[in-house]
Amino acid sequence: MTRRRIVTLTTDFGLSDFYVAALKAVLLTHSPRATLIDITHNIPRHDILCGSVTLERAIDGFPPSTIHLAVVDPGVGTNRRLLIVRIKKSIVICPDNGLITWAWHRHPPATIRQITWHPPQASATFHGRDILAPVAAMIAAGRAITKLSRPTSAPILLDIKPAITPRGQIIQIDHFGNATTNIPVDLVHSHRQKTIRLRKRRIGSLRRTYTDVPPGHPLALINSSGLLEIAVRDGSAAEKLRLRVGDTVRVQ
Amino acid sequence: MTRRRIVTLTTDFGLSDFYVAALKAVLLTHSPRATLIDITHNIPRHDILCGSVTLERAIDGFPPSTIHLAVVDPGVGTNRRLLIVRIKKSIVICPDNGLITWAWHRHPPATIRQITWHPPQASATFHGRDILAPVAAMIAAGRAITKLSRPTSAPILLDIKPAITPRGQIIQIDHFGNATTNIPVDLVHSHRQKTIRLRKRRIGSLRRTYTDVPPGHPLALINSSGLLEIAVRDGSAAEKLRLRVGDTVRVQ
Amino acid sequence: MTRRRIVTLTTDFGLSDFYVAALKAVLLTHSPRATLIDITHNIPRHDILCGSVTLERAIDGFPPSTIHLAVVDPGVGTNRRLLIVRIKKSIVICPDNGLITWAWHRHPPATIRQITWHPPQASATFHGRDILAPVAAMIAAGRAITKLSRPTSAPILLDIKPAITPRGQIIQIDHFGNATTNIPVDLVHSHRQKTIRLRKRRIGSLRRTYTDVPPGHPLALINSSGLLEIAVRDGSAAEKLRLRVGDTVRVQ
Repeated sequence: MTRRRIVTLTTDFGLSDFYVAALKAVLLTHSPRATLIDITHNIPRHDILCGSVTLERAIDGFPPSTIHLAVVDPGVGTNRRLLIVRIKKSIVICPDNGLITWAWHRHPPATIRQITWHPPQASATFHGRDILAPVAAMIAAGRAITKLSRPTSAPILLDIKPAITPRGQIIQIDHFGNATTNIPVDLVHSHRQKTIRLRKRRIGSLRRTYTDVPPGHPLALINSSGLLEIAVRDGSAAEKLRLRVGDTVRVQ
Repeated sequence: MTRRRIVTLTTDFGLSDFYVAALKAVLLTHSPRATLIDITHNIPRHDILCGSVTLERAIDGFPPSTIHLAVVDPGVGTNRRLLIVRIKKSIVICPDNGLITWAWHRHPPATIRQITWHPPQASATFHGRDILAPVAAMIAAGRAITKLSRPTSAPILLDIKPAITPRGQIIQIDHFGNATTNIPVDLVHSHRQKTIRLRKRRIGSLRRTYTDVPPGHPLALINSSGLLEIAVRDGSAAEKLRLRVGDTVRVQ
Repeated sequence: MTRRRIVTLTTDFGLSDFYVAALKAVLLTHSPRATLIDITHNIPRHDILCGSVTLERAIDGFPPSTIHLAVVDPGVGTNRRLLIVRIKKSIVICPDNGLITWAWHRHPPATIRQITWHPPQASATFHGRDILAPVAAMIAAGRAITKLSRPTSAPILLDIKPAITPRGQIIQIDHFGNATTNIPVDLVHSHRQKTIRLRKRRIGSLRRTYTDVPPGHPLALINSSGLLEIAVRDGSAAEKLRLRVGDTVRVQ
């Protein structure tokens, strides 16, 4: 009896069509005992940065040996590589378009291989179903990664890194309207004064939790990912402060 | 081999971020064989009443010994209690902010304990992941509730009860635009005449099913929860009748 | 130890209410070891055609002996039949309102039976929970179909078929705004010239993948279901070309 492997799914497929279930059908066909966990399928269409930040959360949160299948793939049908990445004792299966970026920087070292396995027939429009999901499922079922892939050079990376100076930026805005920055907790704590500025606006000193300011007020805190976050108590910082991914945030 | 326990999840986290999966990662880490079932993650942000009505449905619908994890938690980071409630042969894990209200009234008696277990490190912003989910998972894995909690006094309850007079109110509006009231079937049947009024509008006599009126017409019936419901055949009562939670409904 | 059966769910229940979990509660009560897979719960309310096209995808994609529970049921509470359909080595449980149409045409032959099992008490508003889900669960747990149903005549079918002439129509529009037609790959390939027209507009010759045209340009290709699809590269064909289900598409 094989062990039950966790396989997570992160995509921009949405929840209205058959596409997500198409991945699961393949996963269960090859690996009937896998535990399938949806991370999210609401990554905005083709938004590789958002997918990358979310994928890092999954890699960080799930136990060792979890397999993470990530499919945000505007280049489907072209010659971009398909990757198997070993990182933080987990395995990531994704196209080589920058999706691995945020995890690559947050959880070094990683090793990378290019998928060589190919089905007898693959559609030109759905490599997630036809190549990535079968590879994830075969690994979940115990197939050696070396039989499915070969060594390859460094992956394509987006132009985003954890901040190493006090000047960072917003990298993701969540469902509550809270904004995650690329500024790690250590960098914040290395500052004696911890006054946070968003663009030209003063947000105030670092807070511990949302209820440390009155309702409707903006605040900055270290969020559950260990990154500086801009929020509004009982409200949406995205709306109230008109935040966008890429906005500058500084610790002073 | 431990038994597979069902753990349900009810939150206001939405389906776009990593938060739901963060709970599942913790649950599967501590209890790899648990069967995880999403009730919904679309409770409107911080809407404890909506969460409470939905949570009662979960408690009522799932088999004995199911564990229900409910996280709608505007007070995260404050000193509100975190609860373990035994109710209808099930176990509920939730913050003490009124979430248990509707089940508390519909399925007495219940017993309540306060969670005393605390992780070495907890974030100030995500007790769902850092305390509630680990406690749910440890119970799923067989840990004694008495090791994780202590007796405590009655929970905080919202100002909502099953109606005991013919005058009730709308407590939830569903995805189809149908409105559930707090008027139980027994109360309706105790009336010889069963004419339903919504605010000042006559809805008509009690119907058995949606197709008992012509398309587009409003009706009242006993819904699948055993409560009086206001609906519009093949349409949205919420839109057509401009319903809101709290609207008065009477049986005459 | 019984085998783990896959049970899929396709509904118009949405993801905000308890209804989907109500089905799962029943399924797990009768068949605790079933693997439950959501196809989608975002079928537009009462849209039987959309449900039918999606259900066919599920039947086509999942392994033999999968049980497919499909509930889009505007006629709940009336005398419409409830069906058990054996098709493509799978089992479908659904109301007799046309939901089976697209699979019926794409995967002949099928056999059809009418559900005769009835619970001691059923609500008049939620046969999905009270009849269809228990029947699906009992079959998953090994109960003989003949004990739950009797032979019956042909199902109700919608007025939609796979095209057999070069003139077809759009049958579904997905989350990306891509439009699936009822024109199968074989029919397209039987044409020497493959110029695609949408209503009176020339879309151009058949392409292999989305990146075969510049960003923002419309194209036609064979999609991952083996059907002709109208798309716009890196955009929404539904918006850009104002597509609607039923629009005429021709191969010339």
